[in-house]
Amino acid sequence: METLSENACFGGVQGVYRHASSACKCDMTFGLFLPAEAKDGPVPILWYLSGLTCTHENAMTKAGAQGWAAEQGIALAFPDTSPRGDGVADHEDYDLGQGAGFYVNATQKPWAPHFNMWDYVAEELPALLVESFAIDADRQAITGHSMGGHGALTLAMNLPGRYRSVSAFSPISNPIGAEWGRKQLSAYLGDDEAAWAKHDASAMMKSTGFNGPILIDTGANDQFMDLLRPEALAQAIAERRQQATYRLQPGYDHSYYFVSTFMEDHITFHAEALYGE
Amino acid sequence: METLSENACFGGVQGVYRHASSACKCDMTFGLFLPAEAKDGPVPILWYLSGLTCTHENAMTKAGAQGWAAEQGIALAFPDTSPRGDGVADHEDYDLGQGAGFYVNATQKPWAPHFNMWDYVAEELPALLVESFAIDADRQAITGHSMGGHGALTLAMNLPGRYRSVSAFSPISNPIGAEWGRKQLSAYLGDDEAAWAKHDASAMMKSTGFNGPILIDTGANDQFMDLLRPEALAQAIAERRQQATYRLQPGYDHSYYFVSTFMEDHITFHAEALYGE
Repeated sequence: METLSENACFGGVQGVYRHASSACKCDMTFGLFLPAEAKDGPVPILWYLSGLTCTHENAMTKAGAQGWAAEQGIALAFPDTSPRGDGVADHEDYDLGQGAGFYVNATQKPWAPHFNMWDYVAEELPALLVESFAIDADRQAITGHSMGGHGALTLAMNLPGRYRSVSAFSPISNPIGAEWGRKQLSAYLGDDEAAWAKHDASAMMKSTGFNGPILIDTGANDQFMDLLRPEALAQAIAERRQQATYRLQPGYDHSYYFVSTFMEDHITFHAEALYGE
Repeated sequence: METLSENACFGGVQGVYRHASSACKCDMTFGLFLPAEAKDGPVPILWYLSGLTCTHENAMTKAGAQGWAAEQGIALAFPDTSPRGDGVADHEDYDLGQGAGFYVNATQKPWAPHFNMWDYVAEELPALLVESFAIDADRQAITGHSMGGHGALTLAMNLPGRYRSVSAFSPISNPIGAEWGRKQLSAYLGDDEAAWAKHDASAMMKSTGFNGPILIDTGANDQFMDLLRPEALAQAIAERRQQATYRLQPGYDHSYYFVSTFMEDHITFHAEALYGE
């Protein structure tokens, strides 16, 4: 693992690191914020999964998360959104290929064998972080924005016991229910829809739910509302009687101005779960 | 004036606007954050001047200022750092030309007649903001980063009564005392050093000082320390017995991770001055 940069930040360190990923079969870059408390021993960690076109960097510089994480003594992990590099397949559309991994293990060419963001975020990167930094594997939580909100919700519901809490900012909530989402699921996973359900937050909520608290914020003026389909997830949450807070925020759109506005709420929410019991 | 974007942000609005500038003789773009209180009447304003290579956008997205400004009911102005466009002179160095206006009125070709950032920030843009938005001209404060810290300090000391308080993050403090700074001052202002003194924070501190509180933070690990020359300004402040808080922050560098870490302190500092008496 190679250190690309380390900057003092809110009493802790915002680092950027690169490593050879076995899951993605290429070099991967990630950001990690460690609060001051990490000098004295393992700290809880909040995963932040980013949206389409983002790298590890967007949330690190624009979400305003480190100050609140420092206040709570929580680490923040910022993975990239896809494998990258010359040897990795890509597509001219913004919503397919590099920058658009959708947190799945692709079974279809040309996305297989590199596009394994599910394994990368669920297995490889957590193991690397726990091995290399003062991270407490037993106290993890997860959040994300847009495609990253989709990743956070589907990972949390598919890996019971892994994350104590899950939240999302304007998550892609029901890709199976939108022509736009069906395009990506079929590109990465093929036409057998049985493989799609675990990657649809609304379907997972119907079948499984989450054993812990959920917080979701979506801007009521989000310009991508038709693609996000928040109504499908809201309905599934209500049907399941899932412990959840689901908020539509008047006036807000899909931007990081929205994300940063509600970041304090989300980190406070996760801190309660990470420090509980 | 043309609205380029408006995003809901911390209960207020982060806008980006473009207008034809008479000072710079080209179109200029600026950011303006208005807190919710601006719906009910004029609010105080804090000017944030950016550093080399920045546009109006860097601090707007990376400094984490809007949340604290919203808490205090203060507007934030984010001007660009130079005139721009095809008809505007430029230079291959990062520290001259577009993105490097140094908050002076250039008298030398090819920078004259466009490079009049002093008049733009001191006169034209404040008049436009007060005319077009709910901004209270009697309650202004100013801050900035690096070249913008230089701009904030020199504007504040040259315009007594204009700003109630001034602060700076890692300001360029004594360009006359560094070969690097002398290059820019001579390029923009010519070889007559009499014209330089008003654009040197340490020289202005020696000759004039500031009638109000000053807060300065510089990272002790700042990679540009030789260019910033904080020691010259610290000495001038001490000689004058100027009301000031001057802090060297251990471990911090020149980045926005440093700026965002101390933004709460700076906005709280300005709020005390803006809401005093």
